[in-house]
Amino acid sequence: MSQPKIDSLSSSGNPKFILWRSLLNAKGIKKENLFILSGEKLVREFIQNPTYKISCELITKDLFPLQAQKNIFELDKTLFQELDVIGTRFNLLVLEIPEIKESVSSDKIEGIEVVAPLGDPKNLGALIRSCVAFGIRKIHLTDESAHPFHPQCLKASAGAVLKAPLYKAGLLKNWDLKTSWALDSKGQELEQVPKPDTARIIVGEEGRGLAGFEQSQFISIPTQNVESLNATVAASLLLYSWSH
Amino acid sequence: MSQPKIDSLSSSGNPKFILWRSLLNAKGIKKENLFILSGEKLVREFIQNPTYKISCELITKDLFPLQAQKNIFELDKTLFQELDVIGTRFNLLVLEIPEIKESVSSDKIEGIEVVAPLGDPKNLGALIRSCVAFGIRKIHLTDESAHPFHPQCLKASAGAVLKAPLYKAGLLKNWDLKTSWALDSKGQELEQVPKPDTARIIVGEEGRGLAGFEQSQFISIPTQNVESLNATVAASLLLYSWSH
Repeated sequence: MSQPKIDSLSSSGNPKFILWRSLLNAKGIKKENLFILSGEKLVREFIQNPTYKISCELITKDLFPLQAQKNIFELDKTLFQELDVIGTRFNLLVLEIPEIKESVSSDKIEGIEVVAPLGDPKNLGALIRSCVAFGIRKIHLTDESAHPFHPQCLKASAGAVLKAPLYKAGLLKNWDLKTSWALDSKGQELEQVPKPDTARIIVGEEGRGLAGFEQSQFISIPTQNVESLNATVAASLLLYSWSH
Repeated sequence: MSQPKIDSLSSSGNPKFILWRSLLNAKGIKKENLFILSGEKLVREFIQNPTYKISCELITKDLFPLQAQKNIFELDKTLFQELDVIGTRFNLLVLEIPEIKESVSSDKIEGIEVVAPLGDPKNLGALIRSCVAFGIRKIHLTDESAHPFHPQCLKASAGAVLKAPLYKAGLLKNWDLKTSWALDSKGQELEQVPKPDTARIIVGEEGRGLAGFEQSQFISIPTQNVESLNATVAASLLLYSWSH
């Protein structure tokens, strides 16, 4: 490998830095169609098998570049830390977001699917991790969902977002949820419901109740002494149960 | 109810305030044997049925006291906010920690038990929530465990800590784990293992691997495409499966 060419960058007013910093929130990620991949393990795995287009690699002077083909920028420590929101102190990759297909509720249901109008990136990431682990066929992200490539979502998913079957589902209110299942303590007990071959499961924000899902069919995980389970835990139990 | 007497407090040098502030970390909670209960829902529920001794109630001038019998202190806003780490903006209760029984690994195993050497208060709280929900008979906290009455643990448990069957288990290395079960992707698949009547499950920190549990029996939750599940999700699946 030839010596890679490295550009230095030390001003927070630099347009490139301003662009990268915009990738720390959903608005910037959407506008630029780029996201930041961080975390030593995830970044090393990605470099072994780069499934997304690399826009550039960001390092500081105590880090070595991992690849030679693409734009490499060495940032001043304070600038780097501003982009390294998770505090990984390892090379950051700026990657291009691939096209995400669109879905509507009249699409044929394939296996077990999840509708995930979760606005919190950590909750969405944790759910996506379980969806991928249990072979969920489609994850429908509505306009209410956090951005799946938000740094906190990527982290909570332990990188599962990169392999997830994501779909852009539009506004939740445009979805016909009559044939979907939602978790609610007043629903039928999980073990009493015959395991379906195909099902769409809608997962809501914890504590938000059923706002918007009133038309769904309800299923409950039997518990004692607590009002509810953690939302990701409850959804994961249902996904595990129905995907096996 | 007669008008409660309310003391005002505006100095961060006040010994009472210094004591309360010490309850934001494990060291202070242990030393004082007190903890802060926060969150409107939890606090209101507690006041309906006070199962712990109340040391005092803390408010600001825009909050009304919820009880009249005990010490009530009105704090300056900035002082109150320092104690209200979760940002509940609701009355805080300072409560006495009840005696926690001790346990050793030679104790007879009762139903499904959990050994929880989790140092992260959020992870411990999330696990305790699932333990209580699934009727786990004993939760063994080792010296490595976070303090269960740490504000972040209480929050992650959604208050389940208050009802949890907690035991002080000493150092993990003093536990004989040969008859315990631990989760590991190399273990027997969950559905292949006959559901035991009694079992001790040891739950480790995510990403820490099996350090310390090498002697246990291993069980795995089958997954696809991901290296592992979230640790609380995986443990909850096992607890649900074996407690039903």
